[in-house]
Amino acid sequence: MKVNPNYANLQDSYLFSGIRRRIKAFLDVNPEAKLIRLGVGDVTRPLPPAVVEALSAASQEMGDAATFRGYGEEQGCVFLRSAIAGYYAKKGVTLDETEIFISDGAKSDLANILDIFSESNTVAVPDPVYPVYVDTNIMAGRRLVYLRGTPENGFLPTPPVDLDADIVYLCTPNNPTGAVYTKELLKEYVDYAIRRDAVLLVDAAYEAFVRDPGLPTSIYEIEGAKQCAIELSSLSKTAGFTGTRCGYTVVPQELMREGVSLNKYWLRRQTTKFNGVSYVIQRGAEAVFSETGYAQAMENVDYYLENAALLREGLSKLGIWFVGGQNSPYVWLKCPDGLSSWEYFDKLLNEVHVVGTPGAGFGQGGEGFFRLTAFGKREDVEEAMQRLSTLRQ
Amino acid sequence: MKVNPNYANLQDSYLFSGIRRRIKAFLDVNPEAKLIRLGVGDVTRPLPPAVVEALSAASQEMGDAATFRGYGEEQGCVFLRSAIAGYYAKKGVTLDETEIFISDGAKSDLANILDIFSESNTVAVPDPVYPVYVDTNIMAGRRLVYLRGTPENGFLPTPPVDLDADIVYLCTPNNPTGAVYTKELLKEYVDYAIRRDAVLLVDAAYEAFVRDPGLPTSIYEIEGAKQCAIELSSLSKTAGFTGTRCGYTVVPQELMREGVSLNKYWLRRQTTKFNGVSYVIQRGAEAVFSETGYAQAMENVDYYLENAALLREGLSKLGIWFVGGQNSPYVWLKCPDGLSSWEYFDKLLNEVHVVGTPGAGFGQGGEGFFRLTAFGKREDVEEAMQRLSTLRQ
Repeated sequence: MKVNPNYANLQDSYLFSGIRRRIKAFLDVNPEAKLIRLGVGDVTRPLPPAVVEALSAASQEMGDAATFRGYGEEQGCVFLRSAIAGYYAKKGVTLDETEIFISDGAKSDLANILDIFSESNTVAVPDPVYPVYVDTNIMAGRRLVYLRGTPENGFLPTPPVDLDADIVYLCTPNNPTGAVYTKELLKEYVDYAIRRDAVLLVDAAYEAFVRDPGLPTSIYEIEGAKQCAIELSSLSKTAGFTGTRCGYTVVPQELMREGVSLNKYWLRRQTTKFNGVSYVIQRGAEAVFSETGYAQAMENVDYYLENAALLREGLSKLGIWFVGGQNSPYVWLKCPDGLSSWEYFDKLLNEVHVVGTPGAGFGQGGEGFFRLTAFGKREDVEEAMQRLSTLRQ
Repeated sequence: MKVNPNYANLQDSYLFSGIRRRIKAFLDVNPEAKLIRLGVGDVTRPLPPAVVEALSAASQEMGDAATFRGYGEEQGCVFLRSAIAGYYAKKGVTLDETEIFISDGAKSDLANILDIFSESNTVAVPDPVYPVYVDTNIMAGRRLVYLRGTPENGFLPTPPVDLDADIVYLCTPNNPTGAVYTKELLKEYVDYAIRRDAVLLVDAAYEAFVRDPGLPTSIYEIEGAKQCAIELSSLSKTAGFTGTRCGYTVVPQELMREGVSLNKYWLRRQTTKFNGVSYVIQRGAEAVFSETGYAQAMENVDYYLENAALLREGLSKLGIWFVGGQNSPYVWLKCPDGLSSWEYFDKLLNEVHVVGTPGAGFGQGGEGFFRLTAFGKREDVEEAMQRLSTLRQ
């Protein structure tokens, strides 16, 4: 028996284990230090009350033979797909319920969607990049090319004229940079994909943070996108579902490649390899899209956006270059004084007891940069920025 | 861009759509008929009260900032892995928590586990067979060989002397046949796998139905199994989780191939492509393994087993050959009078308004056989058997 030979090409993910190791070493020596963690992209606000209510009610339903639910559709319950179609309708995007697939989160589907594509395809990913895009393709042996984000392009790379990729990942608002793609830039990618018969995989997990009405919150706001784009989204950041697990993937009916409906292929993949998301959780997710539930979820998002504004304000005062933090929970800063990502990490940890994420962990294009997240508590964000201001430059 | 070329080799699953179509045609002509459905393998009894309580309590926790949970370990919460280790300990099987992975059900992991194996491996599956084993390997382009179940071997094929397979699927108690592998037979497979450096993928989704203390409920009761077997299980049938979604996969630390730890490879797969099962659902699953919860779950399993006994009794009286229905919720019968699977399906549907599953839908080895399930209501099972007794042979 042979193991998957591509796994040997994976690099160990040293990022978060490296962070953990350094924090441990620091705390061993400084057990009294009050660390402020602005590193991990995990939410801290609880689930909206409407969601909790729906989860509890569905749990009770499952205990009564009259309302008990067994196997559901692998694609997801119609009530939830219909609620999501309604959500898209408010963006001006018309989707059929057959185009929406309920997932246990964007990460699973970002990985699993690759199953319907040949391993011979070339894949373009932004750099810096969410590592899942890279590792999942290495596991399948696909060739990768990188679209480099830089301060010059505001970490929003345009498709190069000589780009030769079959699958192109986009993430907007971006993780890790917080940069948000404009409609004009997305149109360039849609045009490329249609011209080249490529497919765009668009990670929209942070779409609920977009407050600027001029910025797109779905790729399908761009003309032609239904012919070339799959959109993957999540309630993790929209409604605090990081531990509750629910997302959705849109595969338009008009998306055809090699004469094959990708919607039909994805449905075949899901019916064969998946049994749908828990009924209880789907009821909780449905509540996110109710008027009350969405308003409650947006209170939390507003809270995080206010944190992000404080991060921006603090960095501006300190004269540190950054992108993001507007319409996004992430702030991506250039390490001052020419420090490397890890040098800056150590400096913040040791001198002001603040933890962030070294940009180098997100790819070569992240070296010399650093990510702060707005998912912490208000008082922690305020104190972190106060501490940064005391740092000798 | 190229699609996955292997998908073109999949056969459309006509089984359940074929059943639905025939039922619809029947009901169009006989709208008043009271159909009894003993076809689908879905449970009908509600979740145990202890599980409902745990789901509700966890839902409340998620609504309070003090007890809210964000991202959990991809491998699953320690409290649940520890509960499952305790469950195995009662079987005399010692597992470390690092060997247990929480899944959203056995189907997902039966599919996803293949990611860690080379596509060049040859795969052996029983025939008749749960179609997922076949389709997931066709999707990856692997070569399949079949281990034929027959009335002569009681639908428990032994590994042929010339078997040349790298991956071997076993399902015990078996779906669709209800046959249960003995320790001696499992030992033959373990010996084969060790000798051949193969890996056994053991589907234990129905293990909770085993009441005979002489029959194994885990492959790890067999000496040497930790060197060659991955066990995949589920709470779907144990505790009515078909719509709630939780299962577990065991990859022993001592399972090495080509110098690689399969546990480590699977962990890498899961951390890259999965974000863990919902915290709420994991708390519900934990309750299954509590003393109260398990007793409640076993009341439902006992109910189904009593249904199965009624099916056996009825078939015996009618002189119909069958296996299963003991230590299993499935009864696998030989269609009387030399009828084909679909002919018998039509006969039962049209003459006594009873729906079962044609064995031919589970592979060539299922032709001429028929599956009945014990997951229905007692009164329906009783009436179905009464109706069968009126059938002209």
